[in-house]
Amino acid sequence: MQITLGELAKTLELTLIGDADALVTGLNTLKDAQSGEVSFLANPSYQSQLADSQATAVIVAQDLAEQVAGSALVAANPYLSFAQASQLFNDRPAAKTGIHPAAVVAHSAEIGADVSIAAGAVIGEHCQIGSGCEIGANVVIGDHCIVGDRCQINPNVTFYHNVVLGEQVIVHSGVVIGGDGFGFAPDQGRWQKICQLGGVRIGNRVEIGANTTIDRGALDDTVIEDDVIIDNLVQIAHNVHLGQGTAMAGCAGIAGSTRVGKHCTIAGGAGLAGHLDIGDGVHVGPMTLISKSIREKGAYASGTAQMPMNEWRRSATRFRQLDSMAKRLQQLEKIQKGEV
Amino acid sequence: MQITLGELAKTLELTLIGDADALVTGLNTLKDAQSGEVSFLANPSYQSQLADSQATAVIVAQDLAEQVAGSALVAANPYLSFAQASQLFNDRPAAKTGIHPAAVVAHSAEIGADVSIAAGAVIGEHCQIGSGCEIGANVVIGDHCIVGDRCQINPNVTFYHNVVLGEQVIVHSGVVIGGDGFGFAPDQGRWQKICQLGGVRIGNRVEIGANTTIDRGALDDTVIEDDVIIDNLVQIAHNVHLGQGTAMAGCAGIAGSTRVGKHCTIAGGAGLAGHLDIGDGVHVGPMTLISKSIREKGAYASGTAQMPMNEWRRSATRFRQLDSMAKRLQQLEKIQKGEV
Amino acid sequence: MQITLGELAKTLELTLIGDADALVTGLNTLKDAQSGEVSFLANPSYQSQLADSQATAVIVAQDLAEQVAGSALVAANPYLSFAQASQLFNDRPAAKTGIHPAAVVAHSAEIGADVSIAAGAVIGEHCQIGSGCEIGANVVIGDHCIVGDRCQINPNVTFYHNVVLGEQVIVHSGVVIGGDGFGFAPDQGRWQKICQLGGVRIGNRVEIGANTTIDRGALDDTVIEDDVIIDNLVQIAHNVHLGQGTAMAGCAGIAGSTRVGKHCTIAGGAGLAGHLDIGDGVHVGPMTLISKSIREKGAYASGTAQMPMNEWRRSATRFRQLDSMAKRLQQLEKIQKGEV
Repeated sequence: MQITLGELAKTLELTLIGDADALVTGLNTLKDAQSGEVSFLANPSYQSQLADSQATAVIVAQDLAEQVAGSALVAANPYLSFAQASQLFNDRPAAKTGIHPAAVVAHSAEIGADVSIAAGAVIGEHCQIGSGCEIGANVVIGDHCIVGDRCQINPNVTFYHNVVLGEQVIVHSGVVIGGDGFGFAPDQGRWQKICQLGGVRIGNRVEIGANTTIDRGALDDTVIEDDVIIDNLVQIAHNVHLGQGTAMAGCAGIAGSTRVGKHCTIAGGAGLAGHLDIGDGVHVGPMTLISKSIREKGAYASGTAQMPMNEWRRSATRFRQLDSMAKRLQQLEKIQKGEV
Repeated sequence: MQITLGELAKTLELTLIGDADALVTGLNTLKDAQSGEVSFLANPSYQSQLADSQATAVIVAQDLAEQVAGSALVAANPYLSFAQASQLFNDRPAAKTGIHPAAVVAHSAEIGADVSIAAGAVIGEHCQIGSGCEIGANVVIGDHCIVGDRCQINPNVTFYHNVVLGEQVIVHSGVVIGGDGFGFAPDQGRWQKICQLGGVRIGNRVEIGANTTIDRGALDDTVIEDDVIIDNLVQIAHNVHLGQGTAMAGCAGIAGSTRVGKHCTIAGGAGLAGHLDIGDGVHVGPMTLISKSIREKGAYASGTAQMPMNEWRRSATRFRQLDSMAKRLQQLEKIQKGEV
Repeated sequence: MQITLGELAKTLELTLIGDADALVTGLNTLKDAQSGEVSFLANPSYQSQLADSQATAVIVAQDLAEQVAGSALVAANPYLSFAQASQLFNDRPAAKTGIHPAAVVAHSAEIGADVSIAAGAVIGEHCQIGSGCEIGANVVIGDHCIVGDRCQINPNVTFYHNVVLGEQVIVHSGVVIGGDGFGFAPDQGRWQKICQLGGVRIGNRVEIGANTTIDRGALDDTVIEDDVIIDNLVQIAHNVHLGQGTAMAGCAGIAGSTRVGKHCTIAGGAGLAGHLDIGDGVHVGPMTLISKSIREKGAYASGTAQMPMNEWRRSATRFRQLDSMAKRLQQLEKIQKGEV
């Protein structure tokens, strides 16, 4: 990839202040960029690096354009323009169109145009794979799945049967979609399995991180709406419903039948109990446990903050005594007020 | 699947109040069920939906049978009967019996009757696969493994060598059983690996959720007893021993050599430290850390409850001061009592 | 494996007190060892088992050698000698050298001497696989990866493109290395993907546990230095840097761009926020959240300790009132001092 700053500015719809004929070949951080590379400034804490950056051009907001040592690519939203530039300079190896001879595709499957199916992939009966899809090596897709156009299913992904994806969905390696939800009825010391008869429906432009698991529904479907982004090692239980544009960071988990609204963020390691209703625009802090429904927008947290281990032990010991402390405090207040 | 209510009542051993000839074809929730579907009421909070449900029949307790709009299937334990009905209506695609030509099975492996081995599966030397087993696509089974009758091993599962499963075990996709336990001896800033010489033994009717990991033992085996159920993304370290009928929810983890008794429940995201002894009938709350052995039955928890972020910050700040607060409270009490 | 105590002592450089001609065939715990087996004592709490152990020989410190019932193998560091013995008695089935006919290796890939590539493995364009490597069944290695000599890549592992491993790295099943980091720019309710242009660099003698995920860098690489050990189900986000000899236990996670120093230990379930700087020799407790950088060596923790559920509920309720309690305590102190 090699492009002049002039073409780059035109493609990204930015205003160039500098040399339109300069060639650039990649992206880098302000600190590490060399001549021939483009950088960006989105986080004000890196502003001091502007003057010394060796970048040929920097994507920057209007008010900082003068501080750029090289050329400036002036953006209304530098971070968004950087994201667009990253797509331009993406060097991900292209998949070869066609079905590899070592793939196994059921005769009843319908495969769209310009699809790539890599070695070892196994596609089940009656599947529909949309045009422009990439199906990575050793991916397994169960029967009756529908994958929309231009999806990227990375190697070693598993879909059980009746999984439906919209368009432009990216599924990273090791993801399992449509495994059985965790449903059992206790029966004299054993567990009677509740067969999971629902499926999984995933919208458009969803991205799902490596080794994440999304279970199929018990009776109706587990649903992930459009524009949801999910990081690695996330657990989404049966009949969860994630609203449009919601983001879940790594190692988070949601128990069965919980509904999360639109444009929520769930931070890393957070856990949501089952059967909750979380409204739109709710932000859950890292490693926070949510065990009650939330109707009001805003940020929520649980847990305690880091301490040196010895000090923490003392606080943790006192935490066990908190109820007694509270009562003794009340007693002193009553004495002080002459109530006892 | 199509069955009359009369046959359904007979199969599930329920008392039918209603039309024995009515045909039903599936299960659904009270709210979403249409004519031709069966529903159930197990959770009293849904009782108000009974009158308006379009279900042709509802599995229900004796005392609520009169409130059912359609036919009633009277059950001593409606949830258990619903579980049994779900097995009847299960629409999971049947695996094709036989060894797919794109599977690789060692000559020394013994394969039982009516086994299905899908494309891309690799079965190691001296394995024994019991009759009626399903081995999914791209499953890898190491040497010297024994899989009991009627097990379901879903796609992309990995067993290392010397893994032994009982009968009717269900292993979901992405599970890894028999990986090396995390054992190392420190050696001048490096780590000397302790080779993990034990295996893994898993009982009958165990179910293991997607992407869960169960490590092999260091010297003797890691053991999962009969009727244990394990959800997705659970970590079970070397030489853990899980007692009969115990359940572990998603994202929970158990460190090395910890023993958990029978009929325990470990909620989602909970963590058990290593070398503990947890008795029978212990229930561990969500995202709880257990760092000491538990002898008494009952429920245990740690952590704090959710709060709006701003209020949480104030509580978290005060948590650091708890020991000082406790001492100051004692001091005031002494003053009040005239001791100082 | 069968060896005399004399040879064993020589190989491990230990002093034998006992019968040099006795044959031993395996390792076991003090409690379970039978005649013909070697055991060890590293943890003083097992000292009482020394006298009754049936082990033919016990690896033990000098001062306890007299208490051994059978022969003693005297070691300066018994745990380290046990680790070395475990490598000697390792019974892991050897991989067959050569490329299995059901593997798919790109013509442009360079495969070293004595490499084993199992059935279903897929090796991408321009990869370099070092001599003595084992590539397990159904492993997928993307284009332009470099795997150093004598690495062990277990079944069903996935590497994306541009992943570089040093020598003697062990990667357990289900691991995903080089998946996209979780990088998105918000764009009017949608997320604009930031293509992840960096790679992953992993040093020598690193071990990575089952189903762990290590994301590729956004611009520069994610880096794991030499001698790092990582347990199962660990999440390592883009541009994380782990220093030499650091250990991470199961279910831990590190958010993007955080640097961890050398010889740190991160306990199970712990979480480190993004963009932090953690110095050398820092020890993070189990299920602890680290949200601020740590410059000082030492141990750190957060959270609270386990309690019976009913008592915990009371403490958790009071935790919400902590700020008010602190202020009321101050008020009483002021009154007591005559300040109000």
